[in-house]
Amino acid sequence: MAVDHITINDVGPRDGLQNQPKLLSKEQRLSLITALVDAKVPEIEVGAFVSPKAVPAMAGTAELFAGLANSTSLFSALIPNMKGFELAMSAQVPVMSLVVAASNTMNLKNIRMSTEDSLRVSKDVLNVAREQGANVQAYVATAWACPFEGKISADSVFSVTEQLLQAGASHIVIADTIGAANPLEVNQLMEAMASRFDFAQLSCHFHDTRAMGLANVYAAITAGIRKFDASIAGLGGCPFAPGASGNVATEDVVMMVEQMGFSTGIDMALLVKAADLAIKLTGTAKGGNAKPWIENYYLN
Amino acid sequence: MAVDHITINDVGPRDGLQNQPKLLSKEQRLSLITALVDAKVPEIEVGAFVSPKAVPAMAGTAELFAGLANSTSLFSALIPNMKGFELAMSAQVPVMSLVVAASNTMNLKNIRMSTEDSLRVSKDVLNVAREQGANVQAYVATAWACPFEGKISADSVFSVTEQLLQAGASHIVIADTIGAANPLEVNQLMEAMASRFDFAQLSCHFHDTRAMGLANVYAAITAGIRKFDASIAGLGGCPFAPGASGNVATEDVVMMVEQMGFSTGIDMALLVKAADLAIKLTGTAKGGNAKPWIENYYLN
Repeated sequence: MAVDHITINDVGPRDGLQNQPKLLSKEQRLSLITALVDAKVPEIEVGAFVSPKAVPAMAGTAELFAGLANSTSLFSALIPNMKGFELAMSAQVPVMSLVVAASNTMNLKNIRMSTEDSLRVSKDVLNVAREQGANVQAYVATAWACPFEGKISADSVFSVTEQLLQAGASHIVIADTIGAANPLEVNQLMEAMASRFDFAQLSCHFHDTRAMGLANVYAAITAGIRKFDASIAGLGGCPFAPGASGNVATEDVVMMVEQMGFSTGIDMALLVKAADLAIKLTGTAKGGNAKPWIENYYLN
Repeated sequence: MAVDHITINDVGPRDGLQNQPKLLSKEQRLSLITALVDAKVPEIEVGAFVSPKAVPAMAGTAELFAGLANSTSLFSALIPNMKGFELAMSAQVPVMSLVVAASNTMNLKNIRMSTEDSLRVSKDVLNVAREQGANVQAYVATAWACPFEGKISADSVFSVTEQLLQAGASHIVIADTIGAANPLEVNQLMEAMASRFDFAQLSCHFHDTRAMGLANVYAAITAGIRKFDASIAGLGGCPFAPGASGNVATEDVVMMVEQMGFSTGIDMALLVKAADLAIKLTGTAKGGNAKPWIENYYLN
């Protein structure tokens, strides 16, 4: 990876749609993924292998993968546990994502397991994945703040990251799950992370809940991070802040980093088309804050 | 100025209202300024001493100053030339702001003067101001990019700044007039500026045209800058990007820097009231991107 390249993983079809009030059909979800592929988004989170009763928005993720042709985009899916891993293996998912919160209370409230237990489940999956040659990465959720515990210590993030990498995780995504991080603390944590781990194995995931999404992306870039999650049209939201903005919008991130001189390989005109589709399909996505300017000036 | 304090100058009543399609009455403008004073915004740009024919939105600025009581807020007004200076002196304006673009073409197109001629006019005003004990600061406009010339060289900004400071300008505001700067170049220019000049005499002015306003504020903070223009509710806009966002919103900037541990002295609940008033009065201001979160979570 050249230092002047930034890799974008669009999580709209999963993290985005999962937090939308409207359920999309599999055909609609596939059309959004296809629009992102057309825009040459290098990585796309397609769905999640979770209980369709608990998360109806993600039902039929296996069928989505069956409907996806070979592509220049690398597809991933969320797996909560061994059952999810097995389903994802059957669906021939190229990259699978585990999630462990850095906050013990978040793990207890969200999945009724302590961080230690959640790590054990993830390590079991990573062991089997290694035997089967599967590519499994991991999210460290609530890496800066937790709605129950408040600020999260950097040591918790270091510890969870180290254990996941040692168990064989291919990549670690440091996630501001509730959109509460500010750029100063993003820079501080990611500089510390980049000094302890290989920066090429790290990426960041931000929400725009407090309008600091792009500032946080920039703060992580100055710490050496070169890979980011983003969500087309800002799809998504935060279960703890209804009405607030969702994930940082892919079009905003691509715009900013390309203006800063990084390449993403993404076709901006087709990316805006994908954003328009996301807005049309969901009826709630707003589009990135830079979208009006991109449409009226950058593309004209 | 302690390093943990950031000073906000709200330019909504001038830079903001001047770019709104709707003309407000003097009473309405005064009510907005009063709302900002109530929120303890430390500095407020009240209006401009320009031709009411050319800029009807700023007509009656002298009467506004007459209507403003002694206040904890420091009031300023824009003055384009000696005539504006004289009018502002008569109105007992505490701080006056000159503007010189770093781009020669911008000066020629905007005021039909070269940068050299514009600097001469400003120096004449600064000379008289010194004799009369007036506090005159200066904006260096189009400091990163110009719609006609494109990228502006840092040397142009250094040169204009140095001449204005030598002529007696009390403070220099480095302005991204068209909202085209990205955080990487903001950091680069402001680090170079802070190494050449006293950072306490410098502030920055950003627009959110490309959604990078807060990222640019953060980038300037990392370069040592501790004073920023912002506009209540994101009032304003950019004559070169109709439909795009305006100045970076005061509520967003205050939110971000306070989360980063800086103090601003501003009352957030009353600031949001001022933003609501700005939205109501203009009918076009959208409110800062962080406003929904501030209202629903930060203030609850």
